[in-house]
Parts: sequence; structure tokens; C-alpha cells
Amino acid sequence: MKSQTEKYLRYIFNPLELFGTERTREILSVNPTVITERADAQKVVFTAYLYNQNSIEEKKEVPLSEALSLSTNGKILWINIDGLRKADVDRVGDRFGISPLLREDILAIGQRPKMDDIDDILFCVVNMLYFNEQKKSVDQEQISLVLGKNCVITFQDDPTRDVFDNLRNRLKLPTSKTRAKEADYLYYTLLDTIVDHYFIVMDKLGDLIEDLEEEIVRNPNKRVLAQINALRKEQIVLKRNIYPVREVIGNIIKSESDLLTDFNERYFKDVQDHVVQAIDLVENYRDMITGMQDLYISNVNLKMNEVMKVMAIVTCLLAPATVIGGVFGMNFDVIPLSGHHWGFWIAVGMMFIIPIWMLSIFKRRGWF
Amino acid sequence: MKSQTEKYLRYIFNPLELFGTERTREILSVNPTVITERADAQKVVFTAYLYNQNSIEEKKEVPLSEALSLSTNGKILWINIDGLRKADVDRVGDRFGISPLLREDILAIGQRPKMDDIDDILFCVVNMLYFNEQKKSVDQEQISLVLGKNCVITFQDDPTRDVFDNLRNRLKLPTSKTRAKEADYLYYTLLDTIVDHYFIVMDKLGDLIEDLEEEIVRNPNKRVLAQINALRKEQIVLKRNIYPVREVIGNIIKSESDLLTDFNERYFKDVQDHVVQAIDLVENYRDMITGMQDLYISNVNLKMNEVMKVMAIVTCLLAPATVIGGVFGMNFDVIPLSGHHWGFWIAVGMMFIIPIWMLSIFKRRGWF
Amino acid sequence: MKSQTEKYLRYIFNPLELFGTERTREILSVNPTVITERADAQKVVFTAYLYNQNSIEEKKEVPLSEALSLSTNGKILWINIDGLRKADVDRVGDRFGISPLLREDILAIGQRPKMDDIDDILFCVVNMLYFNEQKKSVDQEQISLVLGKNCVITFQDDPTRDVFDNLRNRLKLPTSKTRAKEADYLYYTLLDTIVDHYFIVMDKLGDLIEDLEEEIVRNPNKRVLAQINALRKEQIVLKRNIYPVREVIGNIIKSESDLLTDFNERYFKDVQDHVVQAIDLVENYRDMITGMQDLYISNVNLKMNEVMKVMAIVTCLLAPATVIGGVFGMNFDVIPLSGHHWGFWIAVGMMFIIPIWMLSIFKRRGWF
Amino acid sequence: MKSQTEKYLRYIFNPLELFGTERTREILSVNPTVITERADAQKVVFTAYLYNQNSIEEKKEVPLSEALSLSTNGKILWINIDGLRKADVDRVGDRFGISPLLREDILAIGQRPKMDDIDDILFCVVNMLYFNEQKKSVDQEQISLVLGKNCVITFQDDPTRDVFDNLRNRLKLPTSKTRAKEADYLYYTLLDTIVDHYFIVMDKLGDLIEDLEEEIVRNPNKRVLAQINALRKEQIVLKRNIYPVREVIGNIIKSESDLLTDFNERYFKDVQDHVVQAIDLVENYRDMITGMQDLYISNVNLKMNEVMKVMAIVTCLLAPATVIGGVFGMNFDVIPLSGHHWGFWIAVGMMFIIPIWMLSIFKRRGWF
Amino acid sequence: MKSQTEKYLRYIFNPLELFGTERTREILSVNPTVITERADAQKVVFTAYLYNQNSIEEKKEVPLSEALSLSTNGKILWINIDGLRKADVDRVGDRFGISPLLREDILAIGQRPKMDDIDDILFCVVNMLYFNEQKKSVDQEQISLVLGKNCVITFQDDPTRDVFDNLRNRLKLPTSKTRAKEADYLYYTLLDTIVDHYFIVMDKLGDLIEDLEEEIVRNPNKRVLAQINALRKEQIVLKRNIYPVREVIGNIIKSESDLLTDFNERYFKDVQDHVVQAIDLVENYRDMITGMQDLYISNVNLKMNEVMKVMAIVTCLLAPATVIGGVFGMNFDVIPLSGHHWGFWIAVGMMFIIPIWMLSIFKRRGWF
Repeated sequence: MKSQTEKYLRYIFNPLELFGTERTREILSVNPTVITERADAQKVVFTAYLYNQNSIEEKKEVPLSEALSLSTNGKILWINIDGLRKADVDRVGDRFGISPLLREDILAIGQRPKMDDIDDILFCVVNMLYFNEQKKSVDQEQISLVLGKNCVITFQDDPTRDVFDNLRNRLKLPTSKTRAKEADYLYYTLLDTIVDHYFIVMDKLGDLIEDLEEEIVRNPNKRVLAQINALRKEQIVLKRNIYPVREVIGNIIKSESDLLTDFNERYFKDVQDHVVQAIDLVENYRDMITGMQDLYISNVNLKMNEVMKVMAIVTCLLAPATVIGGVFGMNFDVIPLSGHHWGFWIAVGMMFIIPIWMLSIFKRRGWF
Repeated sequence: MKSQTEKYLRYIFNPLELFGTERTREILSVNPTVITERADAQKVVFTAYLYNQNSIEEKKEVPLSEALSLSTNGKILWINIDGLRKADVDRVGDRFGISPLLREDILAIGQRPKMDDIDDILFCVVNMLYFNEQKKSVDQEQISLVLGKNCVITFQDDPTRDVFDNLRNRLKLPTSKTRAKEADYLYYTLLDTIVDHYFIVMDKLGDLIEDLEEEIVRNPNKRVLAQINALRKEQIVLKRNIYPVREVIGNIIKSESDLLTDFNERYFKDVQDHVVQAIDLVENYRDMITGMQDLYISNVNLKMNEVMKVMAIVTCLLAPATVIGGVFGMNFDVIPLSGHHWGFWIAVGMMFIIPIWMLSIFKRRGWF
Repeated sequence: MKSQTEKYLRYIFNPLELFGTERTREILSVNPTVITERADAQKVVFTAYLYNQNSIEEKKEVPLSEALSLSTNGKILWINIDGLRKADVDRVGDRFGISPLLREDILAIGQRPKMDDIDDILFCVVNMLYFNEQKKSVDQEQISLVLGKNCVITFQDDPTRDVFDNLRNRLKLPTSKTRAKEADYLYYTLLDTIVDHYFIVMDKLGDLIEDLEEEIVRNPNKRVLAQINALRKEQIVLKRNIYPVREVIGNIIKSESDLLTDFNERYFKDVQDHVVQAIDLVENYRDMITGMQDLYISNVNLKMNEVMKVMAIVTCLLAPATVIGGVFGMNFDVIPLSGHHWGFWIAVGMMFIIPIWMLSIFKRRGWF
Repeated sequence: MKSQTEKYLRYIFNPLELFGTERTREILSVNPTVITERADAQKVVFTAYLYNQNSIEEKKEVPLSEALSLSTNGKILWINIDGLRKADVDRVGDRFGISPLLREDILAIGQRPKMDDIDDILFCVVNMLYFNEQKKSVDQEQISLVLGKNCVITFQDDPTRDVFDNLRNRLKLPTSKTRAKEADYLYYTLLDTIVDHYFIVMDKLGDLIEDLEEEIVRNPNKRVLAQINALRKEQIVLKRNIYPVREVIGNIIKSESDLLTDFNERYFKDVQDHVVQAIDLVENYRDMITGMQDLYISNVNLKMNEVMKVMAIVTCLLAPATVIGGVFGMNFDVIPLSGHHWGFWIAVGMMFIIPIWMLSIFKRRGWF
Repeated sequence: MKSQTEKYLRYIFNPLELFGTERTREILSVNPTVITERADAQKVVFTAYLYNQNSIEEKKEVPLSEALSLSTNGKILWINIDGLRKADVDRVGDRFGISPLLREDILAIGQRPKMDDIDDILFCVVNMLYFNEQKKSVDQEQISLVLGKNCVITFQDDPTRDVFDNLRNRLKLPTSKTRAKEADYLYYTLLDTIVDHYFIVMDKLGDLIEDLEEEIVRNPNKRVLAQINALRKEQIVLKRNIYPVREVIGNIIKSESDLLTDFNERYFKDVQDHVVQAIDLVENYRDMITGMQDLYISNVNLKMNEVMKVMAIVTCLLAPATVIGGVFGMNFDVIPLSGHHWGFWIAVGMMFIIPIWMLSIFKRRGWF
């Protein structure tokens, strides 16, 4: 096993290379079955909203017990949990009747987006995507969404990032459409927020692709090659996280759960449309990246071709001079022209005239 | 972030390269969810037609209120709106009962072609394609088509382009087939016009491909490479806009809306046939472009091969002369032939005979 | 726009290259929607057969009116029309009740093979394929086949080619199976003839591929490259014309038209089998052509590799001679061996021994 | 058209190349519709078995009339016909009620594997595959299998090869499972034998692939390239013959023919499993061959890279010597060091020291 | 045929190359139909567990007869057999009513994962995967799982490896969930253990890929090429073993066997989710390996490009010196500057100034 120090040293001298290979490790290390390895979060934040069209009650950073003690009572309850701890998940699960299988899914790491409908609970796991500006890579955060009778519970990995902030602000407005609707509309809004964020991430990657394409055209070097390679990996991450969401939403639409009002089906169809478009876009990225790879190789070949031509030209220019110089440099007693007054200049002249004549021939044959 | 000036300067010196990368940006920047960013159009033009087999009333560039006040009264009403403004869409929506979800679709940017059937309204969004002669690229304009009871409403992005002009002229003729039929026939004619235009755009791209192929065969240079790359991107644009239309038309045919007369199904099937053919053609384009890419690379390799052969020939011609020149140029006291009268000519003769003999060997072995 | 003269001149000097790009134009220029552009045929030939098991009446090159005046009267009528004129199609359509939509399909250019079943008429359009020996390309001719009650009408583009000739001769024999059967059996025989002809065309292309492969192995030059490229295009033409026929025949089998006797379904299934086999073969062609492309590139690389090795060998042979020649050519007062009687020969000897020794090393390391 | 002599001559000098292209011809020359071209077999062998659990009667190389005169009478009759003659097929067809369409299929050449169920006859055509050790290619032999009431008839192309020999020997054993079962079990056993033979052929090809891979790694030359190309073609042959068998067996399982006992369905499912596995394996071969192609190209590139490096090293070594030799070889009156006693050795020393210093720089920069 | 000795010798000198090709042989040598070739295991270990929620009885390494004599009697019996012997399989089969067809599947080698449901026995064969640390390859072991009424029997190939050890330990705990459930839950747990192990194997391959990618970036040599090739083969092994498992589990879920309780369906769905994720991951591996291949080729090209540039630079530096040296080395009587005091230095100066000037030009044109 390599020591950390060694890796660190290489990172200083060759940060680019390491970046790529580290990322490979992260992408390939997927094991959804080792549940126990998730360490309990250091910090967990509970937020609860209890609302109907007329009133809204906000409980920010309250203890879990307080959030759980809220009774829906005709109102809609949304509990958001940032940070995962087994004990908390179990308490929430007991309160709302979430099956142990689903609890495992909430706690598992590296889940494939999936949807489940067990015991009057509509459950789905999807991954929120963020663009990591520093590493130029796509980060993911697992989000579990639970829809119960008059309540929605959301579990997020990372308490430091606030995905639903914008949504919360809108919820507080009395005119908000969400306020006037059932819990399933809130559920739709949450999913919609997540899917819409995919486009923001892809937009950032689009910027990267554009910059990279400019770089390839101007200067196809090793750094560019490494970046193309890195982009391919991010495209794999996108694909892995976005493609299964189509099935997730499709299953929600097809599910005949009582938790979903018929009327709201059209909203989920709208999300579905966006997911399909996102998948199209991922395909476009793939085509673009393949195109860039080809462009890169072609450009490198073209550059090499030019260098080869320079060498060929120089070699051709050199040849007659070498021969003539060699000819008149031979130590024979009798050398023609050697005693001639203009002999030197005649020889030098031929050294220049012959290559020019050769070049003109080559040019006419289209070699240069 | 790069300044505009810097980009502009590069544009002057290297317009081709920039063209390609700018286009990448445009293609990848798809975000159907950010509705609010569409600025209201500067200029909006409303045109209304009220017709049946016997009479037709044309209202050109009237105020919206006048267009909306027209009562169908057994006749068929077609309102065409060039330029999108939220207020207008809402007024039209209120008058004809268009659902808010559909209104959002009309106003959204970068929509994937889709079809919806809500509240007795048959709705679809498709993209009209134009060939931009200057940029040699495919422009797109979003067109929303609404079919209601005895009325058709069309929304177009861009008031400066007139897609349906030809259709309007035909409509004014008393013998026009459209005049004798229901609103769904007009709806079909509009879709047909749009799909047929795809072929015109592809025809233009076909010309580009032909010219490019000639260029590749004659002179495979960097400009050609950039153009192949550009064509690939346009092919992506075509694919993105045309493929989903198959589903759109298919859904119209399958929809059991009362707005569609059974008899007219065959017309939509005809459009469907054309869309399938357009998709086939896009596939053919892809194959052609891949073929050109391969041809380009092969041709560059062949050219390099030729240059290498020239170098090899020259090197071989040079070698014996260099050796012989070196041999007789050495400063030894005793050099054979050095005192011989024909010594110089013997050496020079060998300089020519040996390479000719070498070439004949190489030729026989098929190297040149 | 390039002038015709310029194109013509290039054609003389470089016929091969032009061939390829012209063909690209033809393949990509598909527009099924511009119906009006088909010029009326210069010459139209009508042939009619009226037969049952006992008798057959042949009307060769009769006026259309005569052909249309024939009454089936229990017998089966086959009218074949070579050459398309709008007026004729309309007269035939009126007589046999062919829907205007189908008439448009008959007259349209560049149709995708399709099948339709309207108003007791079973209609299909397929393309007959011919191998153009001169251009080494696949020509296509649109054939429309109409099956009505006791009658079959066939429309062909080109009066100069006679696809069904062989079939006619067989029809005249009293023992012909077709004579003993219903009109749908004739319909099957016509389709079968067309599909069987696909294999003849592919056989010819197979010959081309074999010759080309030999050429690639022996001499991978620019001409070969152009031919591979040309073959790829013909493969696209094959694919475009043959693939949709599977659907056409499939739809005929699935259609529950009264015109088809249950018993004859098995014959159409037989045609279907052949179409599937033809599609398999087109796939094989694609694989073969891809294989040839790879072979070509590998072969060019191998050749280049060989040339490189020759250069490397010559360079290595040259190096010691150049150095030694340079060393003893220097004008120092004191040069070792310069006064030695065998000095010259020692130097020359080293010029030969050192490269031989170098070559033996390289050989042992497997470089040559 | 090329003369046979010319082809023969090339075969002597370059057998490998021709082998490949000849094979191309064979593979591409598929025409299932030209029935009449099959020449009657020179020799036809009829074998008949009449058995039940208690007794078995074997008729080896009997005349056809004798085989046909056997009455099943509760027993099961298996007639095997090696060699195809139209007259024989017709006589067998008349005796067992085989439809003319099926007779045509039996006699046709180059059939795609297919299954048919007409008039109480369960019919299928599959291709037996053999590995031709001399040509290193896959041979195929068409086998038609007819299942009737209490009888199985098998038609084979080639009387010299005995596919079912092993099966016959097992049949003669009283304990044979086949003896205790219905005719459909024999039918299954025959199909099973054929499918199992596919694996034997693929095993042989697997050996070829292994040997070839070793060759590529050790010595990537033109012969290897030709062999990869040849293998690709054999893979096409495999694919063409094995893929459709899945459908054939699938259709047998789905067919509700009375000839098949419910109990035996599971045996056909077992064959189906093997066919699916064979298809998997063909896919694996394709991947392997693609991998080898890539490996080959990479290896050739690597070799070329090495040669280039040798040239670069030699060129660098040569450069200073050439320059220094040139410098001190100039004929000036005043040349520094020329009169110095060690001048010659100083110059020669520099000729060696400078390239060593250059190499050390290059090495440190990782170029070699 | 090559002798073993020869192969052995090559193994010593070039272990890497042989490794790859040997593995090819192993992968391609799949023949599921040759049942009789499996040699009876040397050592067979029988373990039996008889448990219900209250008690558990463990029989470790007992004789088969003892294991078979256990009566389930309301309890659940799990017999695990490590090592396959025909006699044992038959005895077990007779005891539990396992059909002979299934017995053949248990004994066959190189089975494709499959599921069967015959005579109240739910049967499936899957392959356990192990990562062979020494060979860096994926080993497989065939595991047959039989679910009968209140009993589960598992057959494993290899008695030295203990897949279910961890599971056994958990089973012994009174709190184990398995103890409280039916036999189908045990069946699920066994399948789950196998599928979960796939991720562990892939994790190991992920490490290999990461290391390899680092190696490619740093030093793309022949060893790296061989390793990429080896990885591709392991990816084929993964694909072959994992893909069919989706169908296996899917068929279990769809099967309406009485052996499966409705409640436990959700557990099998959970396994299904993991299999789908494993398949996704295999796809990701394929993409990664393709990416590495491209990266490798690009990197080799880049290196070659650099070497070419060095050569071009040196050639250019060399050219003027060679020409000037040749010019002034000619033996003419009248040579300009030859008598000049600074003549030598002027010439040498030009030898240095001209190449510097040339380099500056090239640099400005972006060649270096």
C-alpha cells in the first residue's frame, strides 16, 4: 500500500494526474450492501414545518422529540433531517411507521435511486448533485423522501448544504401554491427542486466542456488529455445518478397509492419530462466528449504532421548541400573546378539552387 | 472569466475555432426549468383567421383584445401569436381555458418537444428548425400549438420569421382543403408544415456535407477538421429536436380526444411517416459524419505516409554520398585512388549509382 | 456556388473523388414532402393481364382507357403501369377507388417503404434495387403495389427497366401456380420478386467487397480508401430501403383485410423470412466494411512502420561512417594513423564493422 | 473477370491473403431464394430406425422405398437422409404429408435457421457447424428436421459427415432414455446434439484466439493482422447461424402443436438455455476479437515508438560529432587548436562527451 | 501442438504475456453440455442445520446419511454440500425429490446462471465470484441453491472456500431474523450473500483500475497495455456471471411457487436492486476501461510527438552547421575568408546564430 506521504508528494509535483485517478477510486467504490459502515453524523439538524393554507408554524433546529410530537391534525407536516444517525432514523421510523427495510435504505451509502411503496409509505431515494468548483467534479448527496399520510419527511446526508432553502422561503408565503395543496404536492415540489438542480450542475459542466474545446483547438497537450478523461468520469457520475430517476418517477406515477391525488399526477409527469430531458442532455454530453476526444487525437496528429513536414523540408534542403560539400571535400589530386576562380561560388550556388528546385517540385505535387 | 474583448480579438484572428466552441455553449445550455428568465418580447404580432368553407375573415396585426373577442360561432378560429409575453399568454389562456401548466410550457425556454392533453385542450410544443446560412448552423424556434373546440392557437417565439406564411395564402383560397374541414385538419396542416421544414434544413446540411467531403479528399487540413466537428454538433441539434416529435405525433394519434375526428387520424399518420423518415435521415447523417471523420483521419495518415516516404527516399539517396564523401575527405597520407586521374569521377559515380541501386531494391520489395 | 465547368474539369483529372461526393448528395437529398416536383414521365407504358386458371388475356402497351375498361368478372386483373403521370394515376384511382392520400404516395419521390390499408385497398410502396455496374452503386426505383378486389395494379417509375418480366412469362403458362389462386397470391409473387432481387444486388456488392479486400491487402492506397467510403454509402442505401420492408410485410400479415385469404398468409411469412435474412446480410456487410476500414488503417500503419524501420536502419548505418569521416577529415596537424600505411583502410573498415555490430544488437532486441 | 490461373498463382505466392478474401465471398454469397440452383446430390444414403422401448429395427443404407414402406404402428420411426435430391424429398413429402413450402425450404441453399408449423408437421431448419481444421474456418451444413405423428425425418446436406452417429449408438441401447419416450423426445435429442456441437466449434475457435493473442504480444506482423481479420469473419458466421436458433427453439416451445407432450417442454427449455449461453459466448468472442484488434494496433504503435526513439537517440549522438567534424574540417588558414598536439583528441573527446551529456538530460526529462 | 516445456520457458522470460493468453483460454472454454467430464470431488463436506426460532442443531462435517436422516418436522433444514460427487447428488435428489434435469444442472460445469421451478422445487444456479489476489483475476465457483418444503440445500464446488461462514454465525444467534422466518427467507439470505460478494470483487478490480490509470499517466509501457487487456477480460467474466442473475431473481419474484411467502417478495426485490446496481457498475467498468485504452493510446501518441519534436529540433540545429562545415571544407583553391584571421570564428558563429534564429521562427509559429 502506498503511503500518504508519497501520494502527497506526487500531488505537489503532478496534481493533475492524481486528481484523475483519485476520482476513479471514488466512482468505482460503490457498495450498497455494507450498511453498517456509515458513521453517525457529527451534527444533526431537525427542522419542522406544520402548515395549511391559513397558517404555518416553523420549528428551526429543534430537538427531534419536539418535531415528532407535532400532531398533523388536518395540517401538513414536513420534517427535514440534515445528517443521518441510526437512532434518529429509528425514532422517526417508529413514529411514522416506516418499515425496517426502508430505514436500511435511508442509512445505506451509495444507493442507486429507487422508489418503494411499503405499508402506506411512498418512499424514494435520489441523489442531489452539486458541482464542486474546486475539484471540477460532481458531488452527490443522498436524499431520502418519505411521503406518509399528511406528512413528508426528508433525510439529507450533509447538514452544511441547504438544498431546500429556496423552497422553504416560498412555503412561508401565504400565496404559495404548496400551501393550498395536499402533502403529495410538497413531495412533488421537493423532487422537482432536486431534478431542476441537475440542470444547474450540467450547465457548469457545459462551461467546462466549452473551455476545454477551446483549449484542444489552441493547444492539445497532456493537461487537456487529462481533463477530457476527467470529464468522462463526471459524465459516468451524471449517468449513474440521473438515469434511474426516470424509473423512480415513472413508478410513482404508476403506483396506485392513496397518498397521491389523481389531480397531482400531472405534476409528476412534468418532473418526468424534465428527467427525460436531463437524460437527453447526458447523452449529448457523451457525444460531445467523444467528439472532443476525436478532435484532440486529430489535432495531435495534425501537429505531428506539421512537424514531420518541417523535418522533411529541412532534410531535403540539407541533402544537396551535404552531397556537394562531401564531393568537393574529397582529397583527390584532380578535382574539377577546384582551381577555377568561381569554383567555390558555383558549388555554393548549386547548394542553394537544387533544394529550391526540389521544393518547387514537391509543392507542385501537393506534398507541402 | 475571460473578457469580451479578448474573445473578440481571437474571433478576428481565428474565427473558425471560436465558432465551434461558442456553439457548444449554446447546445449544452439547456435548462427547461428556469421559466422566469424569458424576457417579454419587444414586439408581438397577433393575427386571426375566422373561416368556414364559404367565407374567411383575416385580421392582420390586430390588438389582442380584438382577436380574442371573435366568436367562433360554428366557424373555425385560428389565432397566431408571434412573440411571447406572459400577460398575453395569460389573457389567451383565460379566454380558451388553457391550464396554467400549459401556459408555463408555452413560456419556458429550451423545451423538449412534448404533447399534453389537459382539460379539453390538445397541446404540443415542437421546435421549428431553420438553417442559419451565415453561421452554417441549425437555429430553432419554439412553437406551441393549441387545439381547442373549433379553434387553433399558435405561439411563436420570433415575430421576424414567418413559418406559416405559405399556409396562410393557401387558406385564403376558397378551394383549400383546410377550409372544408374541422379545426383538427388545420392543426395537422400546421404540424405538417413544421415537419416538412425539417427536410429543407437537412437538405442544406446535406450540401455542407457534400462540400466538406470534397474538401477532405482534396485537402485535409485543420479547417476541415473544425467543420466536421461543427457538423457533429448540428447533428446533435437535429437529433434532439426531431426524435421526440415521433412520440408527440404518436401520442396525438393514440389520444382519444374528442377534438380529433376519426377520419383525420390518417393525416397524422402521414406526418408520423415523415417524422420517421426524418429520423432515418438523421441516422444517415450520423453515419456519414462518422464516415467523414474516418476518411479524414485516413487521409491525413496517407499524406503523412507520403511525406515519410519522401524523407526515406532522400535519406537513402543521401547516405552513400555522405559516406563516400566522408571516406575520401579523410586526411590520410595514403588514400587509394586519390592520385588517380579519374578518381574524383569514380567516387562521384558511386555516389549516384549506389542510391539508384538501393531504390531499385526497395521498389521491388514494394516499399515505395 | 461552383460552376459546372469547374466540376467537370475536376471530374476529368480526379474522377474517383468526385464520384464519391456526388453520391453523398444523392443519398442525403431525401424530401418526401415535396410532391409537386415529380415531372410527368415522358413515356408511359400500360400492360394488362386478365386471367383465371383456364384462360389468360394479355394487353401489351395498350392505351390506359382500354386497360381500365376491362371488367374482372370473376377473373383477376393485373394492370402494370411503367412511368408515372399525375393524370393517369388519377384515372386509375377513380376507376378502382384509390384514396387521394394513396395517390399522393404513388406520385411522391423518395418515399420510405410503407404499407397502408384504406377503403378496401391494400397498398404498399417499396423500392426495387438495381446494381449500377458503371457507377458501382445501388440504384433504386419506387414501386407502388395496389391490391383491390380481384385486381392488382402496379406503378413503376422507370419504363426502361422490366422487373416483372420473368414473372409475366411464368404467368402465361397454364400450369403456373399463380393462375390457380386469388389476386393476393399475385400480390405476394410481386413482393417476392422484389425482395428476391435485393439478394442479387447484394451479391454484386459482395463481389465488390471481395475485390476491395484483396486490394487492401496488396496495396492500401488512396483509391482503396475512396472505395471503402463509397461502399459505406451504398450500405446506407441498402439499409434505408430494406429495413422498413420488414415492417411493411409484417403489417400486411397483421392486417385483417378481406383481400387476403387466410391460406396465403404463409406465403407472406415466407417473404418476411427473406426480408429478415436480407437485413441480417446488410448487418454483415456493415461488419465487413468496418472490418475492412480497420484492416486498411492497420495495413497503412504497417507499411509506415516498415518505411520507418528502413529509415532507422539507414540512419544507423550512416551514423558511424559520418562520425569517422568527420573525425579523420579534421584539419589538425597531428592526426593519429594519418601517416599509417593502412590508416585509410582501418577507418573504412570501422565504418563497416560498427554498423554491422549495431544491427546485430538491434536484431537481438527484436527491433527489426 | 480474373482468370483462375491468375488467382492460382497468387495463391502460391501469397496464400494467406487470398484465404481471407475468398472467405469473404463465401460468407456474403447468401441467396435463399434461388431454389433451383441446388444440384442433386451425387450420393444419397437413407437410414431408418423403427423403435419402441422393447425393440429396435435398424435399416442401414436401404433404398428409399424400403424406408418409406415401414409402418410406425405404435412404434417411432426415424428416417435420416444424407444428401438432398428433389425427387427423394418429394417422395418423402408425399408419404408424410409435408407441405410444398417446407419441401422448398429443405432444398433451398443458405437458409436462415427457421421454424414452421404447417399441417400437423413441426418443421425446422438449422445449420450444423463444423470446424474446418485446414482452412481454420467454420463450415456449415444445413439440417432440416421434420416431426410428424410418431415419426422424425432428418435431411442432411452432406453424406460424408455423420453428425448423429453418437446418438444412433445410444439409441440402440435398451436403457436409452429416448427409447422410452415419444417422438418429440427424439426431436429434442437431435436439436440438442446440434446445439451442443456449436460449443465444440467455438472451443476450437477459442484455441485459435488464444494462439493469436500470444502471437500479437510477441510479434505483431501482417500475418497476425490477416488472422484477426479472418477470425472476425468466422465470428460473423457463428452469429448468423446461432442467433436465429434462439427464436427457432422459442417458437417450438410456444407452439401449441399436439406433437409436443407438455412434459417434454422442459427439455426444449434446456436446449434454449444452451443456445442463450452460446449466444453469450459469441458476444464474448466479439469482445475478445475487438480487444485483440486494439491490442494489435497498440502493440504496433509501441514498436514504432521504440524505433522512433532509437532513431532519435542515434540522431542526437550523431549531431555533435557531425558539427565538430564539420567545424575542424573547414579549410581556413587559421584554425584554433589545429597546431596543438592534443587538438585532435580534444575534438574527438568533445564528440563523445556532448552526446552523453545530452542523453543524460533527455533521460532526466523522461523522454527515453 | 506446443510442448509444455516451451510454454514454461516463455513463462520464465515473459510471465506477463503468458498470463493474459492463458486467461483467454479459460474464459473461452465454456461448454455447459459436456456433463460427464466433471471429476468427482476429492473431498466432500456436509453440514446440516435444523432450526426454528427456539432451537438450532448444528451438524458439522457429518456423513451424508446422517444429514439426510434429519426430519424437518416443522423446523427448517439447511444442508450445505461442499464438493460435488454424482453419487451424493443422486442420494440428495432422491431424498428431496429433485428432478434429474436439475441434478444434471448441479453437476454441469460452466453453467450460465439460471432459475428453474420443477416439481415443487425452486432451483437456481449462480456463480460466486472471488478475487484471485495472485493472478489479479476473477475466480468463479458454481453454487446451486435448492428450495424445497421447509428445506434449503446448497451445493458448492470447492470445499476449501467458505462463502456462507459469516451467515452461519449469524444463524446461530437466537435473535437472528432468519431464525424467525420461513425457509424462503434463508434462501433469500443465501442469494443476498452471493450478490453482495460481487461488490467486494468489483471493489478489488476498482483498486486495480485506479492503480493502472496512475501507471498509464506516468509511464505508458507494454506492461500497462497487457494489464488493460487483462482487465477487459475480467470485465467479460463479470458481465457473464452477473447479467443473467437479474433474470434469475426476476423469475423467482415472478414465479408463483407456494414455497415463497408473499411477504418475502420484498426481500427478493431488494436483492434485485443490488443486482441492477452491480450491472450498472459493470457498465461503468467497461466505460472506464475503454477510457483507459483511449488514454493509453493518446499518451503513447503524445510521447511519440515529443520525441518527434526533439528530433526535429536537433535536425534543425544540425542542418546549418552541416552545410557551413561542408561549404568551407571544400577543396577549392580560392575560398573566401579562408585567409581571413577571424574566418574560422565567423563560420562557427554562423553555425550557432542560424539555428537560434530558426528556432525563434518555429517557436513563433507555434510548432514547439
